[in-house]
Parts: sequence; structure tokens; C-alpha cells
Amino acid sequence: MLDLIGPLVVPNDSKIVLLSSDGLGGLPRPETGKSELETARIPNLDRLAAEGACGLLRHVAPGITPGSGPGHLGLFGYDPLRYLVGRGVLEALGIEFDLRAGDVAARGNFCTVDGAGLIADRRAGRISTDLCIQLTARLKTITLPGVEVLVEPVKEHRFVLVLRGTGLGGRLSETDPQALGKPPLPVRALDAASTRTAELVNAFVGQARARLADAAPANMVLLRGFDGVPDLPRFPEVFGLRAAAIAAYPMYRGLAKVVGMDVLKTGTTFADEVATLKEHWQSYDFFFVHYKDTDKAGEDGDFDAKVAALERLDGFVPEILALRPDVLIVSGDHATPSILAAHGWQPVPVVIRSRYAGADPVTAFNERACAAGTLGTLPAQHLMPLVMANALRLTKFGA
Amino acid sequence: MLDLIGPLVVPNDSKIVLLSSDGLGGLPRPETGKSELETARIPNLDRLAAEGACGLLRHVAPGITPGSGPGHLGLFGYDPLRYLVGRGVLEALGIEFDLRAGDVAARGNFCTVDGAGLIADRRAGRISTDLCIQLTARLKTITLPGVEVLVEPVKEHRFVLVLRGTGLGGRLSETDPQALGKPPLPVRALDAASTRTAELVNAFVGQARARLADAAPANMVLLRGFDGVPDLPRFPEVFGLRAAAIAAYPMYRGLAKVVGMDVLKTGTTFADEVATLKEHWQSYDFFFVHYKDTDKAGEDGDFDAKVAALERLDGFVPEILALRPDVLIVSGDHATPSILAAHGWQPVPVVIRSRYAGADPVTAFNERACAAGTLGTLPAQHLMPLVMANALRLTKFGA
Repeated sequence: MLDLIGPLVVPNDSKIVLLSSDGLGGLPRPETGKSELETARIPNLDRLAAEGACGLLRHVAPGITPGSGPGHLGLFGYDPLRYLVGRGVLEALGIEFDLRAGDVAARGNFCTVDGAGLIADRRAGRISTDLCIQLTARLKTITLPGVEVLVEPVKEHRFVLVLRGTGLGGRLSETDPQALGKPPLPVRALDAASTRTAELVNAFVGQARARLADAAPANMVLLRGFDGVPDLPRFPEVFGLRAAAIAAYPMYRGLAKVVGMDVLKTGTTFADEVATLKEHWQSYDFFFVHYKDTDKAGEDGDFDAKVAALERLDGFVPEILALRPDVLIVSGDHATPSILAAHGWQPVPVVIRSRYAGADPVTAFNERACAAGTLGTLPAQHLMPLVMANALRLTKFGA
Repeated sequence: MLDLIGPLVVPNDSKIVLLSSDGLGGLPRPETGKSELETARIPNLDRLAAEGACGLLRHVAPGITPGSGPGHLGLFGYDPLRYLVGRGVLEALGIEFDLRAGDVAARGNFCTVDGAGLIADRRAGRISTDLCIQLTARLKTITLPGVEVLVEPVKEHRFVLVLRGTGLGGRLSETDPQALGKPPLPVRALDAASTRTAELVNAFVGQARARLADAAPANMVLLRGFDGVPDLPRFPEVFGLRAAAIAAYPMYRGLAKVVGMDVLKTGTTFADEVATLKEHWQSYDFFFVHYKDTDKAGEDGDFDAKVAALERLDGFVPEILALRPDVLIVSGDHATPSILAAHGWQPVPVVIRSRYAGADPVTAFNERACAAGTLGTLPAQHLMPLVMANALRLTKFGA
């Protein structure tokens, strides 16, 4: 898709806003038969649906629940089955670690091993974040030949390990046996390019064991989710867009940074994000604006809180429209149905509002209504080509 | 898709009419909120929609605006991303040049160069077609070793160059630097198979310069859109259909010829085309009938003219139905929304009327109504298998 788009891109001064409401899609509450979107009073989003073209986005494949990485990469136009962002990389992005191409990242846990070196607690009794910071400082003193060793605390027993250098490979097995009474496993390379990296990681683990010997219960580490930083085509170059990301949560800023968007400094609320959007309106062509509350309420299984989050989001739509974007898209990176209290596999409503989006019978912004839209049920990575077309930024294919 | 279909084809004496209304799809006029199809009085097309199965055709991919080549190849069952028809080939088809497999074609412009050989006018002041014919006659005297050189005038400053011979390659760069004050570029081969062809084309350009030296303002040529004639699977053989094309405009006749259809002699109006259809009804199984007026009005940005063109088309539907085709399809090769005044990326309404097309809630033939049809939004190259099935010309897949 990206290869098809590249040669068709033409310049224009049109403005695009992609509003991603995290975990947007939901499911009916059994008592009422209505989903969160169907329950919420969202007149502004409904008007967008009436004026624009609607459909449902499927981020990976039917029945597949997207993580936040694939969910957003799909929205950005990348095939999430081709471009993978590993767990270690996401964890690093989540603490705004300044990842660079070629880095290999892993999630770390402090754990407890007994005198025989067998795992007694995989999370070291969930030590305090303060203690995590102290022990991480010990790990920072570890050195390995030819590479930089970067260790950062995350929260409680969790930390991030990043190796930086040339010729590293991220295809590595995990050291966590996922069971008590067993020793941590040595890391194995899963491809030839990762052989040396496996040796380096095993050396790191050996030194970590020594430095933590007196630190029970956190006297050992487990490493999981190894991954290299993916070398993604850069969004601004592929689409010819000056692209900015506005997100209060670090992980989403990180995902935008990985694809080459400028990450704008903003505050902690969505009102701050909208203020940032206004402030930078003239300087960019494309804005990715992230709204977290819908996902948070869904993950908590709190149907009413998700309804309220949707109504708050709806209240900001007129402010965004007042900027007169040529193309406004509202969708999300995955569903988070409150009755599931987790990410879901259900396709996610999408509306594209532009002068050229097309006639559409849909007049309400929810799962059931959008299923009858002209966009149909669309793989998420096809959204950006549609957006580019609506922004009159693509020429025709073939003569 | 073609590989899947081939072995399933079985004989039948059923008749199929594919009516392609060029640029059929549109967009709502902002003042009324209704598209051209929604505005037009088209009772016969609406009745087809009520009786048949409806949907929307997407010719290339979401957001991708098809040219006429990919648009029609999709309708004919070919994957337009796999089978490409270049600009030079289309230009040659547009003047009914008798292209053959292995030919390499290019669009030519007469241009003006100054004493230093730098381009002063890329179109030589748009010389008259008469002068183009005279100067093309000079170019026809050019000979090259081992290949035939064929040059034909098109219109004003435009002509077509075709090289015919064995071992030619069409992957060539253009000679037009797309700027004034620069010299024409030499042609470069973009793959190894085109190396010799590049040398031949450069020799052609050298001889053209000599023959035009005294012909200012048209004292040089520029060549663009090089392409080999694609070696497409032949439509009549793939589908087991005696297939005929009826089109008043040469380019569409040419596209049909490239896939191996018989091109029937017809007049310049759609009434002529329908008369031709009746005349040859017994001799063919499949008729591709092309209606140009919808595209023409859309390209002109003339909403009312497009509405009128749709109403004229509607008036011919009873005559076509009177022939009692077993399968009648109405669709188009791409949208040409009047408010865009150009080809658009929007999916195009399609109706399949046959005894076996299936129940469908759609009762009007337009973008919004067809979005709710049982065909859904369908890649155009999936249309022909559906048509073949409705014509009872495909056996089942697998035991």
C-alpha cells in the first residue's frame, strides 16, 4: 500500500486531523441492548457521521484483537502484520525512552530467586517504584564490550533494558520460564543475526545477578519481549505531510515518533491537547490527536464512565471543526468494550468528513450505524490513502 | 482470480451485457445534499436496482483514483495492480493504432528548442493538427536498424511513436525535463531488457532533430509514457465467452481489443451503440457497451449535464432489457464527481440483474442506496466471477 501511494502523492495545502479515541468501539450493555456510543449523547459526532462517510475499521484481521502498537500503526497506514513493534520497544516508548534505529529493547522484571537459584517470586513481591529506581541504578553500572547498556526504571518491579550499538539483533528468546521453582533461562538467539546479542544479554544477566545478590527479595532479573526498533518508512516522507502528534500519554507520543512524526509538547488533559492543536495549526499539514479516556474507562469495565468519556470528547468536536480542517477523521486504534474490560477484536467506527467524502446513509456515530456506511469494513491501513485522496493529495493511478 | 476461474468455466448459451457508464459515480451537490444519480429521474435504473443485487465497485484500492485503463481492466476481471497499461499504449489505442504484442509505444510532443538546443516551448505553441500531420510525415521517414518505426499524428502538438520488433523493452525514462531552458533528456533504460530499445529511441530522437531543424516552432520532439503492450490473458479464452465491445470512443475500443474482445463497428452516439448491440445479439455471449457522456459532463464539472446524461442513459435501459439478457450489469470504470471535475476515488454503484442475483434491500440506483446492497463494496476484479456465476457459466470449486 505504501509503495502504491508514494508515487501518487502531490502537494496541496490542505489540513488533516486524525482524532484517535483510544478503545473507541464497544458492545451493547445486556440490560439495554445499546453500546457505549449508542448510549452517549454525542450530537457533534452524530453530525459528523451525517455529513461524512462512515464505516468500520479492522486493524489486523477478523477476530484478532490489536494491541496499541498494531492499532496505531494501522491508523498511520502501515500494515500491522508486516511492521511489528515488540513489547520491549513499547515499554521503552511508554517511558519516553529516546530509542534509536538499531537499538534492542526488552522488558525487565526484578524477581526473587532462592539459594539454589530457582525462582520464588516472578515479581519480587512487587517492590516499590522507589526501590526499583535504586536497584536500577546498580544495573546501570553494568558494562558490556562494544555496546552501550541503558537501563531505566518503569514502575514497581518493572524496568527497561536497551542495548545500543551496531550489528545487534532483537530475535531473542525470553529468560522468564513463566513458572516458579525453575531457574531463569539463558537467552537464545532465534536467528543468526542475534547470536552476538544473545551472548551480550547473558553477560548482562550474569552481572545483574552479582550486583543484586544482597538485594532480596529483588535479587535477580527476568527479561522478556526483546525486539529491535523497527525501521519503518517515515510517515512524513511517505505521505508528503508535515505531521505532528499530540498525545498526553507517552506511549502514543512514542509510537508517533517511531514513524517520524514531530511530537508536540502538550499538557495532561484533552483540553490541553486541543489548545496545542490550535497553537500549531499553521505549522503542520497533519495532526494525530490522541484521546485516552475512552480506553481507560473500557479497561476498567466501567460502562457509564466510558459513556461520559465519549460525551466529553463530543464536546470538543466544535472547537476542532472551528479550525476548518479539510479532512477530519474520528476513529480509534481498537475497541475496548466495557463488558469485556479489555481490548476487543470488534471493528471500530470511523467517520471521514471532507468536501469529497461522499454520500452516505449513516446519521449516527456508532458501531451499528457505521456498518451501513459507504466505507464498508475497511482494513485500517487503507484509511490513510482515503484520507490523502480526500485531502486532494493523490493523483490518479494509471492513465 | 483469473487462475481460479479458468478451470471452473463451463459452457452455456446465456447472454451477458456489461454496461459501463464512464465516470458513473458522483458526489452530493452541496446545495441539495444529493448526488447526480440521486438527482436524476432514472426509473429504469432504479427498477434494475430493485430487481437485482447492488453494491459498490472499488477498482484499485481505497483512496486510489483509477485512470481509464485500470478502471476498465478491473471491470474485465483483471487485477489492475498486476496488469498495467501505460500512457503511450493508451494514447495509441486512442487513435485506434493497431498495436501488437511486443510493441513499445510512447506519447510524443512536438516542442520548440532555441539555438542552444534548450526547450523554449514544450508544446511548440500547440501547432495545428494539420501541421502535426505534415511533420509526422517527416518522422515516418526515419529508419532504425532491426525494428519498424511507426509514427502517427494525434492532435495539435501530439503524436504517437511505436517501435515494432523482437526483444524490445518498454521500461524507459522520459525525454521531457518538464521545464523550460533545459535540453531534452536522453532516454535511459530502466531495466536490462530495455537497453537496446533506449539506444534505438535515442537514435530516433537524433534523426527527428535533423528532420525538423527547419520546422520552427516545431523543431524538436519530446517523448513520454513509454510502455510495452501488456501481454494480458485473453478475455474470451479465460471466460469462455464470445465477447464483443461496443464503444463510440476509440480508447475504450482499444482497451477491449487489448484483452482480445471483438470490436464491433458502431456509430458516434449511444443510440448507434444500442443498434449495434441488437444487430449482433445472436453472434456473441458477452457485450461490453460503453457510455461516455456521464464522464464527459463530470470532467466538465457540469452537474446538470451529468444528471441529463444519466437520464438519457436510463431511457435506453428498456431497449436493452427487451433483448432479454440473462445477466445485465450496470456500473462504471471510476467515479467522476461533478464537484471534483475529475476522476474520483469513490467506489462506483453496481447492479447485477439476473434470475440468480439474490434478494437485496436496495430499490434505487445511487451511491448511498447501493452501499446497503448484498454485494457490499467489492474489488472490481471480483465482478466478472460473479457475472459468470449468474450466467451459470461456472461449476463449483472443489468436490
